[in-house]
Amino acid sequence: MKLAIIGFGGMGNWHYENISERVPEIEVVGAYDIRPEIQEQIKDLDLKCYSSLEDILEDKSIDIVTIATPNNSHKDYVIKCMEHGKNVICEKPVTMNAEELEEIIKVRNKTGKLFSIHQNRRWDRDYAIIKQIQEDNTIGKFHMIENRVQGSRRAMHGWRAYKENGGGMLLDWGVHLLDQMMELVKSPVTQVYAHFFSLYSEEVDDNVKIMLKFGDGTSGLIEVSTNCFINQSRWHVTGDEGTAIIKNWECEGEIVKLDSTAPMEWSDQIVYTEAGPTRTMAPRPSETTINLELPVVKTDWTDYYKNIVAAIKGTEKLIVTPEQALRVMKVIDLIFESALKEKSKSCNI
Amino acid sequence: MKLAIIGFGGMGNWHYENISERVPEIEVVGAYDIRPEIQEQIKDLDLKCYSSLEDILEDKSIDIVTIATPNNSHKDYVIKCMEHGKNVICEKPVTMNAEELEEIIKVRNKTGKLFSIHQNRRWDRDYAIIKQIQEDNTIGKFHMIENRVQGSRRAMHGWRAYKENGGGMLLDWGVHLLDQMMELVKSPVTQVYAHFFSLYSEEVDDNVKIMLKFGDGTSGLIEVSTNCFINQSRWHVTGDEGTAIIKNWECEGEIVKLDSTAPMEWSDQIVYTEAGPTRTMAPRPSETTINLELPVVKTDWTDYYKNIVAAIKGTEKLIVTPEQALRVMKVIDLIFESALKEKSKSCNI
Repeated sequence: MKLAIIGFGGMGNWHYENISERVPEIEVVGAYDIRPEIQEQIKDLDLKCYSSLEDILEDKSIDIVTIATPNNSHKDYVIKCMEHGKNVICEKPVTMNAEELEEIIKVRNKTGKLFSIHQNRRWDRDYAIIKQIQEDNTIGKFHMIENRVQGSRRAMHGWRAYKENGGGMLLDWGVHLLDQMMELVKSPVTQVYAHFFSLYSEEVDDNVKIMLKFGDGTSGLIEVSTNCFINQSRWHVTGDEGTAIIKNWECEGEIVKLDSTAPMEWSDQIVYTEAGPTRTMAPRPSETTINLELPVVKTDWTDYYKNIVAAIKGTEKLIVTPEQALRVMKVIDLIFESALKEKSKSCNI
Repeated sequence: MKLAIIGFGGMGNWHYENISERVPEIEVVGAYDIRPEIQEQIKDLDLKCYSSLEDILEDKSIDIVTIATPNNSHKDYVIKCMEHGKNVICEKPVTMNAEELEEIIKVRNKTGKLFSIHQNRRWDRDYAIIKQIQEDNTIGKFHMIENRVQGSRRAMHGWRAYKENGGGMLLDWGVHLLDQMMELVKSPVTQVYAHFFSLYSEEVDDNVKIMLKFGDGTSGLIEVSTNCFINQSRWHVTGDEGTAIIKNWECEGEIVKLDSTAPMEWSDQIVYTEAGPTRTMAPRPSETTINLELPVVKTDWTDYYKNIVAAIKGTEKLIVTPEQALRVMKVIDLIFESALKEKSKSCNI
């Protein structure tokens, strides 16, 4: 299948390189970018350099358009491409808000074209490991999930620093972590609450901490920091029967769970620990728990594009759907409202 | 000074042993407990075994009474003791709610007796280290503070399992963490939001996660878990210029802060990291930061009782005051309300 890219900045380039090297099912034919200097780069790569959006829309050879422009321009590009018979992949966040995405979904329904969002972090190994632990029921039902991405560069890049472009960390990384969390918990989001910071960015959120409550009682914590110099764990998940931790992007971590063959004897005595006098917080005897390695999981990002091709052909169900993204965007709308009004928001999303 | 103890369970015993061994300024004369089997224990220790509350109230030799009974009985004991001319120390949580404490404060004002709450964890080394980092301004103004105590014994001990006694983890450990957090941040609490769990306790909270917002913008996270098998850091604090972490009760940890002599050069290129393609979350070059050891701080719990003696003599200001505890109890009342109503609460406490 033949693909064109709209917006040939950092991520546009990344799609080009990775599809070309790793997805033989798709050929990147050309790209369109409004910036003259980027048009030169496109030509230098021996790609077709479209001179306008209309050029792409009228190119009958193009099956798929990938859109990697600033967030505030996604909606118009997506709708025009579908109306001209293209299947469309859009970078995340799919739109500025849920309302824009609802407009897109109407056009998708009318045109019958495929529309997906590049939530590539569903193929991240850390997330896949947590999903595997859930499927294997290794630690029982999840109660508390913490999903964090922390960095310390303290800068928003390019248009990501501007509100009108849909900048800020909630829409940049937060949308990934929310998408992961909401895929993981099979229950509606019922409450959101957020603390936002703009520590060195003039108009967008550069550090965010969010709590989510789900209908089944699960508590989710999401943090995206750009001002954190000692990272906490990428994932920390506690379930009925144990805890799993993934410390970093390299997926170091472990699982500790109850050994059902060695129940705990409860002592009436206060235990004198490093924590001071306590019974409740005294260390559990190690013979009552089992330590497990994290499951070995292989992920391949190219499965995203392979699924797109198969879904267009009708041989597979689309994995990342706009309906999923709509739930996430509705939650994002409420998180912005929670941060602005400084109160939690109840919902059923 | 001579001291009597009311309630000779786990903590009552602990006060007796520790005062006797480590606080020469105070002599523990006797104790009162309603349970016959505990009365035998008191006698076996060669302590005076008071047969009723009135016995203590009428014992003119007693300067200080320490109360270590279930939480719902604190108020009446405290008030009666002060009305009979005793100085009073009460175990935490001081009362079931703010209203009860306000009654006590009125009696304190009327009688002029000393009244303090045994918030012994202000003398914990981990807390003292964080306070030192704040005083030294090592990482600048604090923005995000996480203060956690996690265990995995999954059991509430004795009366701590019952609502009517003031059981549950918010009133048990939460009151310590709130007291620490509210001493640390010199600004009113403006929002509280909480997730409560009763995973294996029938009527009280056994796992809680709380977010606090302060008037100066600081974000606080407090967690008390009894179902966590891999502990997160005891403290994680990020400020303007760096992050401090205290991993455990042994106070292992470190500080990483910006090196102001080595500013970061910002690259336009996406960095291909273990995290995938990213600029924002790419690791910061290590030459732009400095690693520091945690400050060496010595704490001595006996300073709590030494301050009580000095405050009664009028030579020192009381460190743990009921006015501080009243702020904490007001926040606790709101946290219970937040958990019950499933929404955040705004305040100015």
